[in-house]
Amino acid sequence: MSHFRPVALEHASRLINHGPTVLVTTADGSRRNVMAAAWSMPVEFTPPRIAIVIDKTTFTRQLMTASGTFAVCIPGAAAIDLTYAVGSTSGREVDKFARFAIATATGPELGLPLIEAGCAAWMECKLIREPHTEDAYDTCFGEVVAAAADARVFDQGRWRFDDANADLHTIHHLGGGTFARVSNLVAAKPL
Amino acid sequence: MSHFRPVALEHASRLINHGPTVLVTTADGSRRNVMAAAWSMPVEFTPPRIAIVIDKTTFTRQLMTASGTFAVCIPGAAAIDLTYAVGSTSGREVDKFARFAIATATGPELGLPLIEAGCAAWMECKLIREPHTEDAYDTCFGEVVAAAADARVFDQGRWRFDDANADLHTIHHLGGGTFARVSNLVAAKPL
Repeated sequence: MSHFRPVALEHASRLINHGPTVLVTTADGSRRNVMAAAWSMPVEFTPPRIAIVIDKTTFTRQLMTASGTFAVCIPGAAAIDLTYAVGSTSGREVDKFARFAIATATGPELGLPLIEAGCAAWMECKLIREPHTEDAYDTCFGEVVAAAADARVFDQGRWRFDDANADLHTIHHLGGGTFARVSNLVAAKPL
Repeated sequence: MSHFRPVALEHASRLINHGPTVLVTTADGSRRNVMAAAWSMPVEFTPPRIAIVIDKTTFTRQLMTASGTFAVCIPGAAAIDLTYAVGSTSGREVDKFARFAIATATGPELGLPLIEAGCAAWMECKLIREPHTEDAYDTCFGEVVAAAADARVFDQGRWRFDDANADLHTIHHLGGGTFARVSNLVAAKPL
């Protein structure tokens, strides 16, 4: 049984507020792909908009540009090996969903392939065309049109990382295949 | 004695590869400021370039635009309360360095005020003017021209988070003043 529940759009940007490494899924007609991306950030809460760096030589970028859509799936610690694997092979040569036996759900708004097993959340996005920044910085802007998260780790618009859901803690790539997992929540005290 | 050592420019983007919340410092003439920013990412390794979201209404944005420069300081867990405090007050009303007794070093390339106490690293950046994305998305691009890190936690181009340097672990804002600290390093295994 899936633990994924819809996330209100005004809370969607919080899913990547803390800088996790993500998986980007794309589809155009019968072609589809998944890759890892360490470089993304929100740029606005309402409407929920994000920026993500996708190299112009990648198959993902080709499918994003052709379809005008992409999805961001947020892997948990259980998906570290998968994240590194899909970041180290090209979808031009192999269907990575088949190669790594990745089950997909179908996005409710854009029909994109979404990964829930091993992931904590996902967002379907419409590409906002910005040819100059796409070209100069490989920086692509998108507007989130649907989002969902595993309610065991993100609920009521907040991440709820604790010892019981460690496999769903987001992962943060340090380079060279080494990831850190977030934990140790601290609430700031007034100075 | 400072533990900060220069970081080679080709390694600078790795300082924010994993999505930490940062402090942005700015100066123009006798005016200076510091604020917190959760939304930043690298966009290129060589030359090291980053993107950061700075709201157009902020004093920081005013000083960035006037000077064409800004610095990014990366707080450690010891600076959680400080990070939240400087993110919750405006530099138009008070000199936050004085208000919160923040000691500063002077940047070697751009002369910017840099925070080392409680921080793990810093980068001096030249603003790359992109009026459209600055206006439409509050997204500012910068090129890193100098960087340094506390050698106890970042060395030879790599973050070295372990139990001994927990106060220097980077912090990742989840919203509402709650931060997660990275830890639990895992090396991906081939699938």
